[in-house]
Amino acid sequence: MSEPDARLAPEIAASAWFNAPAPLTLAGLRGRPVFLHAFQLLCPGCVSQALPQVKRIERAFAGTDLQVIGIHTVFEHHAAMTPVTLQAFLHEYRLASPIAVDLAEEGSEIPVTMRRLGLRGTPSSILIGRDGAVLSHVFGIEDDIAVGARIAMALAASPFPAGKSAGTAACADGRRAAPAGEAGA
Amino acid sequence: MSEPDARLAPEIAASAWFNAPAPLTLAGLRGRPVFLHAFQLLCPGCVSQALPQVKRIERAFAGTDLQVIGIHTVFEHHAAMTPVTLQAFLHEYRLASPIAVDLAEEGSEIPVTMRRLGLRGTPSSILIGRDGAVLSHVFGIEDDIAVGARIAMALAASPFPAGKSAGTAACADGRRAAPAGEAGA
Amino acid sequence: MSEPDARLAPEIAASAWFNAPAPLTLAGLRGRPVFLHAFQLLCPGCVSQALPQVKRIERAFAGTDLQVIGIHTVFEHHAAMTPVTLQAFLHEYRLASPIAVDLAEEGSEIPVTMRRLGLRGTPSSILIGRDGAVLSHVFGIEDDIAVGARIAMALAASPFPAGKSAGTAACADGRRAAPAGEAGA
Amino acid sequence: MSEPDARLAPEIAASAWFNAPAPLTLAGLRGRPVFLHAFQLLCPGCVSQALPQVKRIERAFAGTDLQVIGIHTVFEHHAAMTPVTLQAFLHEYRLASPIAVDLAEEGSEIPVTMRRLGLRGTPSSILIGRDGAVLSHVFGIEDDIAVGARIAMALAASPFPAGKSAGTAACADGRRAAPAGEAGA
Repeated sequence: MSEPDARLAPEIAASAWFNAPAPLTLAGLRGRPVFLHAFQLLCPGCVSQALPQVKRIERAFAGTDLQVIGIHTVFEHHAAMTPVTLQAFLHEYRLASPIAVDLAEEGSEIPVTMRRLGLRGTPSSILIGRDGAVLSHVFGIEDDIAVGARIAMALAASPFPAGKSAGTAACADGRRAAPAGEAGA
Repeated sequence: MSEPDARLAPEIAASAWFNAPAPLTLAGLRGRPVFLHAFQLLCPGCVSQALPQVKRIERAFAGTDLQVIGIHTVFEHHAAMTPVTLQAFLHEYRLASPIAVDLAEEGSEIPVTMRRLGLRGTPSSILIGRDGAVLSHVFGIEDDIAVGARIAMALAASPFPAGKSAGTAACADGRRAAPAGEAGA
Repeated sequence: MSEPDARLAPEIAASAWFNAPAPLTLAGLRGRPVFLHAFQLLCPGCVSQALPQVKRIERAFAGTDLQVIGIHTVFEHHAAMTPVTLQAFLHEYRLASPIAVDLAEEGSEIPVTMRRLGLRGTPSSILIGRDGAVLSHVFGIEDDIAVGARIAMALAASPFPAGKSAGTAACADGRRAAPAGEAGA
Repeated sequence: MSEPDARLAPEIAASAWFNAPAPLTLAGLRGRPVFLHAFQLLCPGCVSQALPQVKRIERAFAGTDLQVIGIHTVFEHHAAMTPVTLQAFLHEYRLASPIAVDLAEEGSEIPVTMRRLGLRGTPSSILIGRDGAVLSHVFGIEDDIAVGARIAMALAASPFPAGKSAGTAACADGRRAAPAGEAGA
């Protein structure tokens, strides 16, 4: 009987997808690096800093097999950030890569994927290697040079190497911290 | 029998107010200059450029009798930009001056105040003199230096001078144009 | 016998002028507002913040009778910031308004106009009213909105009103402070 | 008899060094990647864009064996950009990594290293691999993400792999083009 690999990124749980013909799974993307970014449409730091960086990442690595995925992890103002508002937001901000609506969990402010990933708030990003392991986990945003370097290293890795976990986190003003005691379990 | 003064800014029609203990009227503000700015919470140019400028205006003229008023003029994505979402938006973006929800008009995408003011889209701003006359009408945003100069002139005017209408408009990327044939009538 | 007017800006002392067919004097400009800005070509705050703002001022008030004048007030690295280097600098940075080379004073690091004006370092700016009086004196730079408002007020004043001295100063990172005990006497 | 390797970066020719206890050579740095950036102190694009990026590169790769080297390649305004002015410039702009003064060549506006490297102007940068081969050559500046990715790939290469030449160039406003027919021979 095999143990689950503790280094593996937990799977995405979504109630809906935008910009994707069918739901995506990390298992199905094994072999490719994945840049997973969590945001909320009313989070100022996400709108002014993280999402513009996501677009720059998409542009810089357009010719590679990097997969960029966004997760709308609503953990506050739930009635204000519905899928209807998200859809208009994605249209206005011209976000083109797949976006998952994080699955709400009954009795919790924190949605399922956010809890599984242990996200402290938004914006957050997680870089996943070709082997499915978490390579880095950042709350806030990092400088573009560091992000570019990190993704290049993930791309350079041969398809299924032993991943290594880097844990440096950099923070940005305007980021949203999750209510204490709920996320990060 | 007197004619209405064509130079006078038309009155605000609001279905709700935020950051105001009671509804405001331009008539009630006669004697003070008013900086009226129209925005939509899902308009990228409003969020990234116009609203930060509004905050700089509030700060620069904090010691004067200038009244800053925002109008949420929804003319697209109506289901996505409800008062519930607006309230959370105002909280997250720390907007402190009075904000009116422009009154929806049956059978039209364009709300009442937007139509009355002849706004072409968002962001737009209208500077109103102490005598209630429109001093300038801008679609997009102007450079800070020009805005500062314009407001200073409005403040310098003695309480009820003859206003003069300046029509220069400068535009910003990301602004929202209203559907042709509806606004600006 | 008349006393000199203490509110009057002291005269410029220059060893050379660029971008001017003949030397300018504040006395000769009486009746027009003057925006006087002091800089050094190796001062990072001047190059990155103050001089770009000077260009925005020139553009915003191009249609008025405001006179913009720069003074190269070298108080450090004297051998590194000669008129030959200044001339190439003005060419590369496309500065078009008149620039005076502040007159060196024997036995002092601080040049004459800098001392007369009591400048604390670079960048600094002094706004002079139509009557020749100092309206404001800023070490560092102010926000564009405040600068625009201040200059508009100077322009709005009738040709020879009683000036009033405003002393608010805002500072910018990268500004250069003069050696203690020399300037500002 | 061996042929010289055409892919090898040509050697630096310097008349002086700043921020270095002794002259550096590319030959002596073999085994480490080198980020070589060419600038002029009166080049606006260098001052406002390239040099701030160099500082971000130094910071992001501080823990690695990347060697950053600047070359002051004066090809215009020679009398205005002397070593005396350069020294004050380096002090004011807090540049800490080694800077070479490119060797003037009698009878040419273009200095020796600039000609050897075939630089088209400033700012330019050349990334050199662990084996001494040119990995990229950029006139202007690239986005930070692309630069970070490129340098990470150079660092990831094992000490003496077969280099590969990438030729993408991106340009920035304010860059300086060399006089036609002189550089790039």
